[in-house]
Amino acid sequence: MDLGTLIGLFGGLTLVGGAMMLAGPIMAFVDAQSAMIVLGGAVFTTLMKYPLDGFLNGISSIKLVFSSTIEDPKEVIDQLVSMAETARKNSILALEKVQIDEPFMQKAIKMLVDGVEPDVIEDIMAAEMEAMEQRHGDARGVYESLAEASPGFGMIGTVIGLIVMMGSLDNPDSVGPAMAVALITTLYGNMFTNLFFAPFSAKLKYLSKKEMLNKEIVMSGIGSIVKGENPRLIRSKLEGFLAPKLRGGEES
Amino acid sequence: MDLGTLIGLFGGLTLVGGAMMLAGPIMAFVDAQSAMIVLGGAVFTTLMKYPLDGFLNGISSIKLVFSSTIEDPKEVIDQLVSMAETARKNSILALEKVQIDEPFMQKAIKMLVDGVEPDVIEDIMAAEMEAMEQRHGDARGVYESLAEASPGFGMIGTVIGLIVMMGSLDNPDSVGPAMAVALITTLYGNMFTNLFFAPFSAKLKYLSKKEMLNKEIVMSGIGSIVKGENPRLIRSKLEGFLAPKLRGGEES
Amino acid sequence: MDLGTLIGLFGGLTLVGGAMMLAGPIMAFVDAQSAMIVLGGAVFTTLMKYPLDGFLNGISSIKLVFSSTIEDPKEVIDQLVSMAETARKNSILALEKVQIDEPFMQKAIKMLVDGVEPDVIEDIMAAEMEAMEQRHGDARGVYESLAEASPGFGMIGTVIGLIVMMGSLDNPDSVGPAMAVALITTLYGNMFTNLFFAPFSAKLKYLSKKEMLNKEIVMSGIGSIVKGENPRLIRSKLEGFLAPKLRGGEES
Amino acid sequence: MDLGTLIGLFGGLTLVGGAMMLAGPIMAFVDAQSAMIVLGGAVFTTLMKYPLDGFLNGISSIKLVFSSTIEDPKEVIDQLVSMAETARKNSILALEKVQIDEPFMQKAIKMLVDGVEPDVIEDIMAAEMEAMEQRHGDARGVYESLAEASPGFGMIGTVIGLIVMMGSLDNPDSVGPAMAVALITTLYGNMFTNLFFAPFSAKLKYLSKKEMLNKEIVMSGIGSIVKGENPRLIRSKLEGFLAPKLRGGEES
Amino acid sequence: MDLGTLIGLFGGLTLVGGAMMLAGPIMAFVDAQSAMIVLGGAVFTTLMKYPLDGFLNGISSIKLVFSSTIEDPKEVIDQLVSMAETARKNSILALEKVQIDEPFMQKAIKMLVDGVEPDVIEDIMAAEMEAMEQRHGDARGVYESLAEASPGFGMIGTVIGLIVMMGSLDNPDSVGPAMAVALITTLYGNMFTNLFFAPFSAKLKYLSKKEMLNKEIVMSGIGSIVKGENPRLIRSKLEGFLAPKLRGGEES
Repeated sequence: MDLGTLIGLFGGLTLVGGAMMLAGPIMAFVDAQSAMIVLGGAVFTTLMKYPLDGFLNGISSIKLVFSSTIEDPKEVIDQLVSMAETARKNSILALEKVQIDEPFMQKAIKMLVDGVEPDVIEDIMAAEMEAMEQRHGDARGVYESLAEASPGFGMIGTVIGLIVMMGSLDNPDSVGPAMAVALITTLYGNMFTNLFFAPFSAKLKYLSKKEMLNKEIVMSGIGSIVKGENPRLIRSKLEGFLAPKLRGGEES
Repeated sequence: MDLGTLIGLFGGLTLVGGAMMLAGPIMAFVDAQSAMIVLGGAVFTTLMKYPLDGFLNGISSIKLVFSSTIEDPKEVIDQLVSMAETARKNSILALEKVQIDEPFMQKAIKMLVDGVEPDVIEDIMAAEMEAMEQRHGDARGVYESLAEASPGFGMIGTVIGLIVMMGSLDNPDSVGPAMAVALITTLYGNMFTNLFFAPFSAKLKYLSKKEMLNKEIVMSGIGSIVKGENPRLIRSKLEGFLAPKLRGGEES
Repeated sequence: MDLGTLIGLFGGLTLVGGAMMLAGPIMAFVDAQSAMIVLGGAVFTTLMKYPLDGFLNGISSIKLVFSSTIEDPKEVIDQLVSMAETARKNSILALEKVQIDEPFMQKAIKMLVDGVEPDVIEDIMAAEMEAMEQRHGDARGVYESLAEASPGFGMIGTVIGLIVMMGSLDNPDSVGPAMAVALITTLYGNMFTNLFFAPFSAKLKYLSKKEMLNKEIVMSGIGSIVKGENPRLIRSKLEGFLAPKLRGGEES
Repeated sequence: MDLGTLIGLFGGLTLVGGAMMLAGPIMAFVDAQSAMIVLGGAVFTTLMKYPLDGFLNGISSIKLVFSSTIEDPKEVIDQLVSMAETARKNSILALEKVQIDEPFMQKAIKMLVDGVEPDVIEDIMAAEMEAMEQRHGDARGVYESLAEASPGFGMIGTVIGLIVMMGSLDNPDSVGPAMAVALITTLYGNMFTNLFFAPFSAKLKYLSKKEMLNKEIVMSGIGSIVKGENPRLIRSKLEGFLAPKLRGGEES
Repeated sequence: MDLGTLIGLFGGLTLVGGAMMLAGPIMAFVDAQSAMIVLGGAVFTTLMKYPLDGFLNGISSIKLVFSSTIEDPKEVIDQLVSMAETARKNSILALEKVQIDEPFMQKAIKMLVDGVEPDVIEDIMAAEMEAMEQRHGDARGVYESLAEASPGFGMIGTVIGLIVMMGSLDNPDSVGPAMAVALITTLYGNMFTNLFFAPFSAKLKYLSKKEMLNKEIVMSGIGSIVKGENPRLIRSKLEGFLAPKLRGGEES
């Protein structure tokens, strides 16, 4: 579980909910029809931008927002360095028996053992990373679209309310409440974007960058193993991808 | 037919229409002149940005939005792998008799069989992809321009209405209805963009990216066939362009 | 003459003019001082961003908006293929007598005949294209600046009007008309941008892209002529820059 | 300590505080609940975009804003030139005894002395710079997110206030004060962004660029030392990274 | 002196001043405190983004806005072609006695004469150009920050005024004047940006691009001199950087 995201979500909801309760009766801010216009509008406009399965795939990436499964880059480095030692002591073929869980590294090592040319392996890995990045962008794009469309439909709802209100100005008592209701879609549009959709897509982007970093470490490490570089040098090289305080002391 | 886009379009229209009917008499939101200002303004300003045939070409790309004809990348990969097997068993010349429907792949294979140098083929394919991407951008640009201009003309219509209304404040009874009418162009501007033009251009961009991905797969596959790579390796390489769950099990 | 742009311009003007006439007396929307603030402000702020001749050069590119002189890429290809045939039948020196109007192609062929090294020619052409692109950007930038500044000065005019109006609220009869006048600059700012400046700069960008495409075709074609490639292959290669429906049938 | 940032912060606070005191009773602008909505909302939405430690890491980079520790590039150059002289007079191995504090330069020199291939060193340094740039972007992203979210929550607070006010228009005396309170969140949202978050993230970006420049100087200098270039040439080369007035006179 | 910028500045000031005088008493638009909030706020927020000397350095680039000292690229070309002729007739060493004022060209020629390797010279010049571009961006960034922050502080001032006004609605006579004063900061924020800061930063960007173009011409020319290319070809090559109408007739 990802503490930051959970704290942020519940903290934000509590804060806005609390602000409403302090400002007036909470029911003044609850309107199912307004929620439907904003949420439904944002969902439908996003649905138009994707084929159905692309949309559902994007929506389902919400689970990553709350429990990312990105491997710790330090462990990736440890595994690569250990493989570099194995390859040096015995031979690259000895890597065949190493237990690897991460499919990207597994595929690379398998090609290495199979005797595929190093630059072919590099091409294949680079293409795979690029395609992955594009897929991540597509998935994240669903939440980006929802974040962008919500305030738009909030405004559509408010203008609809204003038009009706303006058409019945002869009843002054109804102006205030009508305006209040009209403003609720604007409130919802901003809330949905700021509390849900924008942070979701930002988190997905952050996770994608972390996963790309891991894959870059793998690519760099595999390249070093192929060249038979010194494991200590490989560790020093790969730890360059980490923040200084995360690096080990082996290099001194 | 593309289910997501159809559901999105009809859902969005139903939702906004329903919101109007619940808010007041639907006729309060219908105004042909307002629709003409917003739609006409957006169309005319977009017409200025393109030569006439470029505009019409962009408009006509709407048919792709609803029924894209992008080939499944898995089939592209299957065909390439099968050609790689043919080329390995017999020779590259044997590809001459293979039935290929997709013009891009067809052209590449024809050059291959004709003995054109591999890197000339690659240059030609890359230039063709780049030119295609630019053409897609031009077509999509028509809907992007409509999406951008609609709220602008919505605002122009509203300001025109406000100016007239301000000039006749001495008749207070007319203020409300005049304001209501003035706001309709703002409503239309936002609706047209959010329900039609913005999702259309986003969908066209999505389709273009998918088509580019297919072409990248073709380019990568042709490059591998030329080098006479192992068909199993080619499949593994090309499946790197797909999401993990779409990949076959052949590589294990 | 460019039909799309002309229809767009007159259509847009008629539409907005018609909307004004239907809304109220057309004179309610005519105010020379407001036009001067918006247009003058946009022009002066743009003048500051360029030296005087750069500004005038940008302004004068308006003539391209209405009558572009971009050559049809099909003709460019035909000429290149015909030169490739000449060069193959006789020799590259035979190109000296070919009549070429387009200066860019002319310069390249002249260097070719003079025996300049192919990669020097390529460098020279690439640098020339890059410099041309930057010049186009400068020219177009004048209309981009006008499009950006117009709504800004529209708002400045409206705020000036509002400040005066607020200072004389004691005369309620003047509020409406004062407000109406104040809003005219906002209207003008949006109109000038949407009907003139934004489409002008977008059209210039479109034309620039088309011209660049022609120059890329020339560069690619010259490169092929130098290498003595087969004219049929050259045609097939260069037609890759065109939309499929514009391609000839020679390649089948 | 960084004078510009300190003057800016205290000047800005004094200015806005002074404007409030001149405009009315300062207490009219103080509202803890409003501050909580804006600041809390911005913090919570930012928390969602990062894992907890990434958020805290970003927040803690505030100390760099006020006391950056970026080394003077002139000193970096002096040290590199002095090492180039040592390496030329004795040998590259003589660099082992040079005292280096900056970890990036230290690591590069260590590899140099250890006999690592020059282009491997370059790859390692380039990867380290790229990873550092991404980490800086993540840290700065926290303040960018706060700067973006603050006005959003300012608006949410204001709309909540407006909805309550609209619901009780029957008490006209309460309209003004209610509206005043509603506007305070809008004020805070703009103040927090303009006085704190936006300048913080801009300063962090500035510092990151300066640090990258230093590292580029190191990379370029190490490359020259490897090639055994003339120390005077190295100085001239590295001073090209500096503004002309910061360059020494050695090169004349 | 740069005529465009001067005309723009005085024209814009006259225009807006004239609009104010026609609209009402000019003193209605003069408010020292409002100017202080907007200008002071923009300055202080910009100060925070830079160290003090970086801020002052950016501010002082205003002198370039009004009297740029960018050399005419035609003269740069003439000098390079004349040096190419000298180098061809005698030898590259003969360039030692050529009088060169521009430091960038001077440094390159000095290295050439000193026998530095051509690709080392190219690397040094490219790094110097990149560093120069970054410094220009930093200087221009000060005015970009002022342009961005001014409307923000304009809005802060207006909201402060509105809050005070809302708190004293019981005195209806004061509403209009209070609102008028509140709006002045909005007016100033937009004026400062549109009349000063945005055009200043745009002009600095334009000048930077022109200077970069000159430096690219120098780089390309030095490269040609090293290779001992024909001076007529060099002229033709370098004139490719110019607009067609600025090119000489030597090439025909």
